[in-house]
Amino acid sequence: MVPIEIVVIAGGSGTRFWPLSRRRRPKQLLSLGGDQTLLQRTFERVTSLAGIERWWMVVGESHSEACADSMIGIQKKRVLVEPCGRNTAPAIGLAAAHLDKASPDSIMVVLPADHHVGEAERFCDGLIRAREALLAQEQLAAGAATKDGLTPGSRDYQARVRVSESIVCLGIKPTHPETGYGYIERGAALSGQGGAFKVARFCEKPDIVRAREFLQTGRFFWNAGIFVMRPRTLLQALKWQLPAVHTDLMEIAEHIGSPDYERVKAEVFPRISPISIDYGVMEGFSRSLVVEVDCGWSDVGSFGALDAVIEPDARGNVVLGPVVSLDTERCTVVAAEDGGSDGEHVVATLGLRDVVVVHTEDATMVMDSRRCQDVAALRAEIERRGWRDKT
Amino acid sequence: MVPIEIVVIAGGSGTRFWPLSRRRRPKQLLSLGGDQTLLQRTFERVTSLAGIERWWMVVGESHSEACADSMIGIQKKRVLVEPCGRNTAPAIGLAAAHLDKASPDSIMVVLPADHHVGEAERFCDGLIRAREALLAQEQLAAGAATKDGLTPGSRDYQARVRVSESIVCLGIKPTHPETGYGYIERGAALSGQGGAFKVARFCEKPDIVRAREFLQTGRFFWNAGIFVMRPRTLLQALKWQLPAVHTDLMEIAEHIGSPDYERVKAEVFPRISPISIDYGVMEGFSRSLVVEVDCGWSDVGSFGALDAVIEPDARGNVVLGPVVSLDTERCTVVAAEDGGSDGEHVVATLGLRDVVVVHTEDATMVMDSRRCQDVAALRAEIERRGWRDKT
Repeated sequence: MVPIEIVVIAGGSGTRFWPLSRRRRPKQLLSLGGDQTLLQRTFERVTSLAGIERWWMVVGESHSEACADSMIGIQKKRVLVEPCGRNTAPAIGLAAAHLDKASPDSIMVVLPADHHVGEAERFCDGLIRAREALLAQEQLAAGAATKDGLTPGSRDYQARVRVSESIVCLGIKPTHPETGYGYIERGAALSGQGGAFKVARFCEKPDIVRAREFLQTGRFFWNAGIFVMRPRTLLQALKWQLPAVHTDLMEIAEHIGSPDYERVKAEVFPRISPISIDYGVMEGFSRSLVVEVDCGWSDVGSFGALDAVIEPDARGNVVLGPVVSLDTERCTVVAAEDGGSDGEHVVATLGLRDVVVVHTEDATMVMDSRRCQDVAALRAEIERRGWRDKT
Repeated sequence: MVPIEIVVIAGGSGTRFWPLSRRRRPKQLLSLGGDQTLLQRTFERVTSLAGIERWWMVVGESHSEACADSMIGIQKKRVLVEPCGRNTAPAIGLAAAHLDKASPDSIMVVLPADHHVGEAERFCDGLIRAREALLAQEQLAAGAATKDGLTPGSRDYQARVRVSESIVCLGIKPTHPETGYGYIERGAALSGQGGAFKVARFCEKPDIVRAREFLQTGRFFWNAGIFVMRPRTLLQALKWQLPAVHTDLMEIAEHIGSPDYERVKAEVFPRISPISIDYGVMEGFSRSLVVEVDCGWSDVGSFGALDAVIEPDARGNVVLGPVVSLDTERCTVVAAEDGGSDGEHVVATLGLRDVVVVHTEDATMVMDSRRCQDVAALRAEIERRGWRDKT
């Protein structure tokens, strides 16, 4: 059995969740009404695939301690700290470089740290199908190589198999024409692999008209930023598609386990140009697959998406904490969340429609719910005023 | 010179200012952005008319201590505690009963404790003109009595003069067709008394159509609940118009200065039926006068009236405390007010129109600004839920 290693990407801070999320309390450390933080839930839901000894985390420097502390028992060497944010390609590449040394034959499952999944079992089933699709492709390539007379285990044989290795994306079955997500269009179905397809193309966030078209065709999935692959496959793809990133990562990788590691990483990582794995790798990668999953997924990208995590009440209000609402509809009201308050503060609303109210111990935010994407502007203004402790 | 005694009626709690106002922190103890509470400002603005040795206060039992403590130096015997709220006629009557013993020849000036006055000098000028109008009427009566051959100082002479004594209301020159105030229609002007008129009638809060008519005629004033009169005049009016109230007040008055006073008051006062001085006395009183004043007055009846106390900014927002607003118009945003918070909490708003946000240490209220009159419903709901400390 090929071992699975879980790599959780926890680099962002989630500025659209201000004032719940902060510089030192990023979105993945919020619990949003649950017993555990989003980060803890991200690992917890895949325990059936891999235990804590196979968990990795890539975290930003400013909240690395808080994230690591929240994951009691995770091995320190598996907490990979980014000296600064360089988007997903360098972050996942750093994990792949580590894994390629620590567990070269493993399959890595890359998960964002701050998403919501309603049905964990279906989600894990999707990941298992992704692994199966990956292995099936490898076996096909191995079969073809043997048929061509290459000796299994030989250098030529291995080279032949390796250039056939895929990266499998999880494709979330869309439930509505969402304009906030990227999409993956499926190509041909893989025979014998239920719900696995070749990727026809990756599509950036569409406008509402295109999003509706996407939904109608039945051929488009939401791109959840979840990938299943061999570490070496990503490193090879980086080498060909982002050679400068690859070179820098290899320089860091050379020092893994040495006393120089942190110094070298602190020196080299910041000079990598930021680039996303979607744009930098996946869009130009020819052997990507997509596995369809329907599991109540949401990226919980803003307060407007909280209804994915917290069931709205009969009047369409999403409510968390001690809240009293009269004649209030389609509002999101959050009180006393995540160490923000002592739990004794009450939020009361009257006659509101489409308003978001979020109260924390030292900051309260009230906005029109159509402005959920613009919360960062408030945070920036507060920083400009010198109230850095509020950001 | 006839001495003036100031009687401030501080019985209410101002439920429409929840969560700023509370059971134990009534509206008159709010400072609303000023250095002093509304109660302190009420006394302070009339210091030119009477010093602290002539200040009286009628307060509700639940906040009598807080009110008395805030008025350092006020004589304890001048703080009259109502065992329970019985509206304004019994409250002012109680003060009149005390004054009639302590200072029978004085003129009492009755002031609500929680109003705003922009121009104190004009306000005091109005009160002085009210006293002059009162005295002028008395002199007219005295002249007529003398002319009729009654001996000055005789029983008949005094009876004749007393039945001519007036109650003078302050009439606020209206600036807009307000539907939240009662109105006073003026009658004939008093000769030689600038801005003093006989009262034609008292009008309850009008609808907007009538309010506009009132404004157009130029004959209507806002009824500010401010009265200037002899204590004995009110007691006489109560005797004839509200005999049961008068009887009960006299029973209490009998015990003033005796050890039984508190016990008798606690026994008798609660059995008085609640009734307002406007409805119970003024509407049926034939010798009422009104003196016109234009002094930037407001009853600050709800959060919607805060713009009278706090100058709105260029976008029409009334802001108090550490507030950051982006794309916000016609909103009222109050943060960290009146001991509610440690002053470090920030309130941020984005994309709001016509919303009121009030943050205090243990409760935050957000409402559509058209619902300012309904705040008490929120407070009631919070009480129903058992969060009495929040009410």
